[in-house]
Amino acid sequence: MSIKIGILGYGNLSRGVESAIRQNDDLELAVVFTRRDPASLKVRTEGVPVCSVDNIADWKDKIDVLVLGGGSATDLPEQTPKYAEMFNVVDSFDTHARIGEHFANVDAAAKKGGKVGIISIGWDPGMFSLVRMVSDAVLPEGKHYTFWGRGVSQGHSDAIRRIEGVKDARQYTVPVEAAVEQVRSGSNPELTTRQMHTRECFVVAEEGADKARIEKEIKEMPNYFADYDTTVHFISEEELKANHSGLPHGGFVIRSGVSGFEKENKHIIEYNLKLDSNPEFTGSVIAAYARAAYRLSKEGQSGCKTIFDIAPAYLSAKSADELRHSLL
Amino acid sequence: MSIKIGILGYGNLSRGVESAIRQNDDLELAVVFTRRDPASLKVRTEGVPVCSVDNIADWKDKIDVLVLGGGSATDLPEQTPKYAEMFNVVDSFDTHARIGEHFANVDAAAKKGGKVGIISIGWDPGMFSLVRMVSDAVLPEGKHYTFWGRGVSQGHSDAIRRIEGVKDARQYTVPVEAAVEQVRSGSNPELTTRQMHTRECFVVAEEGADKARIEKEIKEMPNYFADYDTTVHFISEEELKANHSGLPHGGFVIRSGVSGFEKENKHIIEYNLKLDSNPEFTGSVIAAYARAAYRLSKEGQSGCKTIFDIAPAYLSAKSADELRHSLL
Repeated sequence: MSIKIGILGYGNLSRGVESAIRQNDDLELAVVFTRRDPASLKVRTEGVPVCSVDNIADWKDKIDVLVLGGGSATDLPEQTPKYAEMFNVVDSFDTHARIGEHFANVDAAAKKGGKVGIISIGWDPGMFSLVRMVSDAVLPEGKHYTFWGRGVSQGHSDAIRRIEGVKDARQYTVPVEAAVEQVRSGSNPELTTRQMHTRECFVVAEEGADKARIEKEIKEMPNYFADYDTTVHFISEEELKANHSGLPHGGFVIRSGVSGFEKENKHIIEYNLKLDSNPEFTGSVIAAYARAAYRLSKEGQSGCKTIFDIAPAYLSAKSADELRHSLL
Repeated sequence: MSIKIGILGYGNLSRGVESAIRQNDDLELAVVFTRRDPASLKVRTEGVPVCSVDNIADWKDKIDVLVLGGGSATDLPEQTPKYAEMFNVVDSFDTHARIGEHFANVDAAAKKGGKVGIISIGWDPGMFSLVRMVSDAVLPEGKHYTFWGRGVSQGHSDAIRRIEGVKDARQYTVPVEAAVEQVRSGSNPELTTRQMHTRECFVVAEEGADKARIEKEIKEMPNYFADYDTTVHFISEEELKANHSGLPHGGFVIRSGVSGFEKENKHIIEYNLKLDSNPEFTGSVIAAYARAAYRLSKEGQSGCKTIFDIAPAYLSAKSADELRHSLL
């Protein structure tokens, strides 16, 4: 008996979850829910129905876990609490400033429905959070740094696309090598936003658009670009398609800390990801946590959980014996 | 109220645990137990009593967790099950082939006594196991590699010291750079023991000893050296003291895996440790899991646990709210 998973939405992330489910024999994609006309959507996995989200309640006893494939800005703050009352859910909520509020909302709903809601799953938040937290517990006197990239930031690419005269765009976040080397040396530098990352933009302008104005608007955009050294390259649509159509990403968390009676010994922990496909890797992490949501629920647990609250063994299809034998 | 910890033994690892406890305000070293005459041992932390292990039962209700600082060959297989009936315990058992048996023995004893026993804590087994297991769950179609070093292997150093004519020795395990690069590229090579690591030995010979014979005995020693390319340097006692007195170690776990409908995307996860002091870092991990043992026991849990069975939040002195706010 496999674990039956429903996915709400069918964007990049949902398709990443779909392909991860195919790689796990104990997981099964049972249904995809859409806010559009279900007839207009065809999913890649054969035999999987597409249903209107309006009829999602009909699936209450037919799926074990619902994965929410939506975005953190508007979808998840509403959807995750709403569906956590009815289903075990997993989301990838990543608006850091609102995590407390989101946790409380999902917790209340999940407890009310007797379900498990796992939030903020992926690689950051997600795998990176796990490493930051465990490293902080193991080396309490230290400092951690998170570098992202080189990789495509979808949020920043979207922000450029909203500028008048921009036809398409792709933005890469790039760690500053000198800063990375300083951190790896264990010197615990104080680094500003600008010192840690640069932003590189590939922009397709509409014909006749004022490129100087576009470049200025990008570089001065608050929150997104103003605090960074930003480079803008205007390229053709063909070049964008040929060289920038993937969604690679990655990055690393480094914790440096000390030990010893005189704090004389230094330790460096580094966790590094190099991902060909950001949404597929995120989807792979979500698939493992969907398994955990199902198992925790089976045990009678309920409420909201983050990656900090879940014992690693719940993520694996392997038995406890097999894990101890092959991976300990 | 801090968590009261006792340590059995006072070797390198126990002293590493002792210094880690000093870095955590909620942990307190309450007692050190020894098999020797307690009067012959003085511990570094002021005011901590040294007691004979013969009287350990007197401490049953006076400490929250007992850390076992002994070795995996003979101490832990006997001690951990023995004391798990009386105390919550944490050990660093690392004889891979016997983990199943050790787990069963500790589990039976801990369940009988209503205590929590956490085994195989440190960095390998320990942090490396955690990364191997989680990465295996997230990228089920892939391959993992563990490299150790460059660092001092105490077991291999001891093995050299047992050879006739050897006064002292230090052995470094060194990853083969070419193999590391192959693995990082995601090419999933099949690597033999010899292709992954070399062994470098610094040996102080007794006066007049036959160096050629010593070198031959080292290089041909089964299990320890025969399967490796081994280099032997004869040096003076002064040089050994001056340049090889530390116990640095480290290494890395690399998981490569694929995702996508056609498995067309590659992902590389790398977890890397650079440790100035192997026993102090191991002790720091043990201190965090001692906190977890105490908390799990408070919740009414009992039995044997490994790093796979414990939710990360149990390791941290920080509250769940603070963790979500600062590290998620």
